[in-house]
Amino acid sequence: MNAQPASVPVRRWITAGFKSVDADSVAVEEPLELRVGDRSVAVVMRTPGHDRELAAGFLLTEGVISTPDDLLDIVLCRDQDGGTSGNVVNVLTSPSANVDFERLTRHVFSSSSCGVCGKATLDAVLQTFSPVPEGPLFDPKTLAELPDRLRKAQPVFDSTGGLHGCALFSEDGVLEIVREDVGRHNAVDKVLGRALLDGRLPMRLHGLLLSGRISFELVQKALAGGIPLVAGIGAPSSLAIECAMRGNVTLIGFLRADRFNVYAGHDRLVRADTGRLA
Amino acid sequence: MNAQPASVPVRRWITAGFKSVDADSVAVEEPLELRVGDRSVAVVMRTPGHDRELAAGFLLTEGVISTPDDLLDIVLCRDQDGGTSGNVVNVLTSPSANVDFERLTRHVFSSSSCGVCGKATLDAVLQTFSPVPEGPLFDPKTLAELPDRLRKAQPVFDSTGGLHGCALFSEDGVLEIVREDVGRHNAVDKVLGRALLDGRLPMRLHGLLLSGRISFELVQKALAGGIPLVAGIGAPSSLAIECAMRGNVTLIGFLRADRFNVYAGHDRLVRADTGRLA
Repeated sequence: MNAQPASVPVRRWITAGFKSVDADSVAVEEPLELRVGDRSVAVVMRTPGHDRELAAGFLLTEGVISTPDDLLDIVLCRDQDGGTSGNVVNVLTSPSANVDFERLTRHVFSSSSCGVCGKATLDAVLQTFSPVPEGPLFDPKTLAELPDRLRKAQPVFDSTGGLHGCALFSEDGVLEIVREDVGRHNAVDKVLGRALLDGRLPMRLHGLLLSGRISFELVQKALAGGIPLVAGIGAPSSLAIECAMRGNVTLIGFLRADRFNVYAGHDRLVRADTGRLA
Repeated sequence: MNAQPASVPVRRWITAGFKSVDADSVAVEEPLELRVGDRSVAVVMRTPGHDRELAAGFLLTEGVISTPDDLLDIVLCRDQDGGTSGNVVNVLTSPSANVDFERLTRHVFSSSSCGVCGKATLDAVLQTFSPVPEGPLFDPKTLAELPDRLRKAQPVFDSTGGLHGCALFSEDGVLEIVREDVGRHNAVDKVLGRALLDGRLPMRLHGLLLSGRISFELVQKALAGGIPLVAGIGAPSSLAIECAMRGNVTLIGFLRADRFNVYAGHDRLVRADTGRLA
C-alpha cells in the first residue's frame, strides 16, 4: 500500500448544468489502528503507506520514544490473505520507552482481532447515525454562489488566512449559521452544536458548506446532523465519498463559482429553470 | 472570547532580503478541555469562542447526545478573575444520553483545577521536548525555492488535490524525505518516523516544510525531532508562534517564491551573498 490515489466516478457540472461523467483521482483515506505491545492506543485516519514510519513518528511526537533503541520492532498485522495490507501496526517498545497508556490512549473506535478497515469504520458510523432520507432538491446555480458567500462571511479568515470556515445553508443558498476555527472539525462541531441547541436537528432541508477539503470525519458529522448535502471548496477523500454513498448524502467537491464535482447522491441536483438533472 | 485574530509582530521578507517589521493578524489557537459530568474527556485545540456550541457539537457527532433534551447544562468554567474566559467547558448530560467514557475519552493532556491554557500547554510540551540550540543559518533564497520543489515532489497531490505534504530539507534546500497524507499530522509523523528509524534524530541542521497551515501541534512535532526551522505555505496560528518562540524554532509562514513572513527565530536567516540579515 502507498499513497497512490483511488479512481472514482465523478459527475462534473458547470454552472449551466451537468457536463460529464468520468473518472477522478482521489486521495485514499483509511483507518490505521496503532497498538503498543498489543494494546490498542489510537486509530488515526491516514493515507495508507509508510505505516511503520507513521507509528514511529506518532510515538516520537507523543514523547513515548526518542531513539531507535526504544523500538524493538514494528509489526504490520497480516490481513486475511497473509499480505501486509492490514490496517494495524503493533509496536514493541523496549523498557527504556516511556509508555504512559493513560495519556497516550485516545478514541479507539474498534479493536477487532486483525484490524479496522474503511468498511468496518463505516459500519460503525451507520450503527450510530441513520442514512439521510431522500430529498430535498438543490439548484446547481445556488450551490455555485456559495463559495463567494462563505468568503464574505469569513472576516477573520480574510485577515489571517488561518481559519477554516463552515456554514449551514438553506435550499435557497442563505448561510444561516457560519463558524470559523483553526480546526476544521471544530468549525463543523460549532455549527452543528448551534443547530442542536436551537432544536433544529435533524436538518433535512439544509446543506453543509466547508471551506477546505472533505475528510471522512466531516461527512460523519453531517450524518450526525441528518444533513443531506455536503459541499466543500476542496477535494474529498476516498472514505468521505464511501461514507456519503452509504449515508445517502450528496457530496460535492471543488465547488467553484462556475463548476463543481459530484461524487455521491447526484439525484438531489436539479436545475430550477428546467427542472431537469442535465 | 471569540474568533477575533491576535496581532503579532512579523518580519516580512522578499527574496532579495529583509523588508519590514510590522504587525500581522493571526488566528488564535487555544486548548479547550471538555468535561462531561466533571470528568475530563478531551482537550481540543480550537479558536476561542462559541465554546458551548463546540461542546454540544462534539458530543452530538460522537453519538453521545442527539437532542437538546440530552443536555441539562453546559457550563463555562470561570477563570481566576471570575470571567468566563477559562478554557474548560463542563457538560451535564441527562440520563438519556449515551455516555461511554471509555470510547469518548481521548488524549487528555492536563486536568488542572480550572483548566488548561496556552501557557500550560507549552509548559507541558517543553517539559517533554527541549528547546532547539542555536544555529544553523538558512539562506532566504533557498527557502523561497522550496514551495516549487515540494509541489514537484507531490505527485499525488497534483492528481487529487487532497493530500497534505511534508518534507525535511537540508540547509542547501534539498528535500531529503517527503511524505503525503490526507492528514497533515500524519504526513509530519511519517517524515519524523523515517528520520527516527534511520537514526538521524535530532536533526539540528534541517528544516521542516509544510504544504499548508501551521498549527501548534506541528511545531510541537518539529521540537520532538529537534528541528530548528519550520516553514509553511500557509498561515501560522497564535499558539504555533508562541511554541516556536519558547522552543527556539524559526517559524516561517506564507512561504512563496518571492516572499515570506518570519514569526519567530529570525536570527537564523542570513543572506548567503552578503552574510547579513537585512
